[in-house]
Amino acid sequence: MVKSNLDLLAPTPLHCLMPASFPYYEDNRAAYTANLANYHAFRVSGYDATLGYMLNSVVERFPWPQEYWKIDSEAKTVTLLTPENADPALRSKLVQDSIAEAVKQNTFEVLKGWRNEKYPVFAPGGEYLLEIERSASCLFGVVTYGAHMTGYVEDGEGVKLWVPRRAKTKQTYPRMLDNTVAGGMCTGEKPFECIVREAMEEASLPEPVVRASIVARGCVTYTHVRDVRAGGETGLLQPEVEYVYDLKLDPSVTPKPGDNEVEEFKLLSVSEVQGALVRGEFKPNCAIIMIDFFIRHGILTAENEPDYLDIVARLHRRLEYPTASHCGK
Amino acid sequence: MVKSNLDLLAPTPLHCLMPASFPYYEDNRAAYTANLANYHAFRVSGYDATLGYMLNSVVERFPWPQEYWKIDSEAKTVTLLTPENADPALRSKLVQDSIAEAVKQNTFEVLKGWRNEKYPVFAPGGEYLLEIERSASCLFGVVTYGAHMTGYVEDGEGVKLWVPRRAKTKQTYPRMLDNTVAGGMCTGEKPFECIVREAMEEASLPEPVVRASIVARGCVTYTHVRDVRAGGETGLLQPEVEYVYDLKLDPSVTPKPGDNEVEEFKLLSVSEVQGALVRGEFKPNCAIIMIDFFIRHGILTAENEPDYLDIVARLHRRLEYPTASHCGK
Repeated sequence: MVKSNLDLLAPTPLHCLMPASFPYYEDNRAAYTANLANYHAFRVSGYDATLGYMLNSVVERFPWPQEYWKIDSEAKTVTLLTPENADPALRSKLVQDSIAEAVKQNTFEVLKGWRNEKYPVFAPGGEYLLEIERSASCLFGVVTYGAHMTGYVEDGEGVKLWVPRRAKTKQTYPRMLDNTVAGGMCTGEKPFECIVREAMEEASLPEPVVRASIVARGCVTYTHVRDVRAGGETGLLQPEVEYVYDLKLDPSVTPKPGDNEVEEFKLLSVSEVQGALVRGEFKPNCAIIMIDFFIRHGILTAENEPDYLDIVARLHRRLEYPTASHCGK
Repeated sequence: MVKSNLDLLAPTPLHCLMPASFPYYEDNRAAYTANLANYHAFRVSGYDATLGYMLNSVVERFPWPQEYWKIDSEAKTVTLLTPENADPALRSKLVQDSIAEAVKQNTFEVLKGWRNEKYPVFAPGGEYLLEIERSASCLFGVVTYGAHMTGYVEDGEGVKLWVPRRAKTKQTYPRMLDNTVAGGMCTGEKPFECIVREAMEEASLPEPVVRASIVARGCVTYTHVRDVRAGGETGLLQPEVEYVYDLKLDPSVTPKPGDNEVEEFKLLSVSEVQGALVRGEFKPNCAIIMIDFFIRHGILTAENEPDYLDIVARLHRRLEYPTASHCGK
């Protein structure tokens, strides 16, 4: 049983740790509509769906190859024009060629962080449409997918969480605190296999331990607005789906850095994690996975968190874009 | 550890078990706006907030006492006019008097199910505004609050859930399956105390067992559109917040009907619950608490449920009305 650490949790503005967010229509219709005027909808011909929102300033500066892009500044759309028989490989190549031109012309800061990892983009119904270089996904505002796992230990004193510090050499958010194991999902990856792989790579956790004891606990979804901490252009939208896992570890099992991504792991109490959250030491999207963990484990409750309902809804935003289905494929 | 019962879970359209839902602006802006034309916004003077949406046909038939109601059919608003120094008692009395007149005139079917229980309505910031008779809350479309607890047992074969059948004398959804313990929250009640009280009343669970082992696991929020199964007028909106609790029980503890609400309790396997869900045997808002349980316990996953992301977001709708804060009051 997880103890509720009410005494340890001073009332803190956890609400402020939620990622800077694209406005909600429900909250303020005028503000939502006004904000949307800053963006163009990214579309692919033949599909009736907005795949992401691109900042107007990105659309203006992008060196679009005119033969396969249609920019409509009236309708505020950017459409990839593809032949009717196009397949994901062709669509991906056209997008890739366009990004390569932007890299060549040195158009965008965020492309200096080239990852050489491909992220999938889906059409309505979960159809795989194309893939895109990871560092460019925020220019197009497409949904990206990741898997986050919290490793924890329970003893008489309550819950303790295994928290890594990101290596100082990490391209993004160096030296910030992170979730025990987390990773982005490349084309073709499924969440469970992604988190098992990352658990071995990042935390040296034995595969049999992970497979036997890890439990899928849902997912967290939100639309992040990039700020200076992410590096590069600001105001870019990052709609994200994070599949959430818990792994209750035996006290004898210790995660250890397995690659150069993590500097060290520490076993922190709930109040220590809470303190680090409030001081802004966690990478922003990892902070909200911690908040989700606290809610799921009865540590944050309706009775001790004034913004409880607001936070729970913000952790599970209904994204206004088509999303993946990882079922049975 | 909860076993993932992949083999037991045939792919079923769980998505169809989600409550008939008020449309999402994100999904179809035109449909959302068109649908909204069927409703008036319920407001209280002095507060800049829509507290609920009332069907136009309800607004037309309601015998509004003109001295303290303003109906604006242009702006589609119904506003309770209160003096500036009004307090919750006065506002509640004005609403109560209006409902009493509708009861006297026999205007609405739903008021024949008079409960004599008062549900609270909140202003922005969680300020307690007024209370309203439970059976009338769906006429005004205000947010209502409840607490649902799933009692379960784990053994070598996996998870088994304690599932009650509602008494045949219940006013709503007689003989349907329910959550182990569930109840609506009246004015002044907090979720945790509500569920402890209901656990004793409905399931005869000893208070020390419940207090020691129950864990708050978040909440489920949605806007239900009432259909014939609920009785009375259809198309009424019921935005609901259900605080969710798990109680892992020792196999030696058996819930027993403690009042006349429950006919019997049965310990069902995941596949038995799944079968009952698919056959529509669960009360609708209890079905979705079961789905939430399956997601939180790794039984439904991204890999075995095609509508996983859609379901998780629908379970946590951001309500477009002010909601309660149960913190520290």
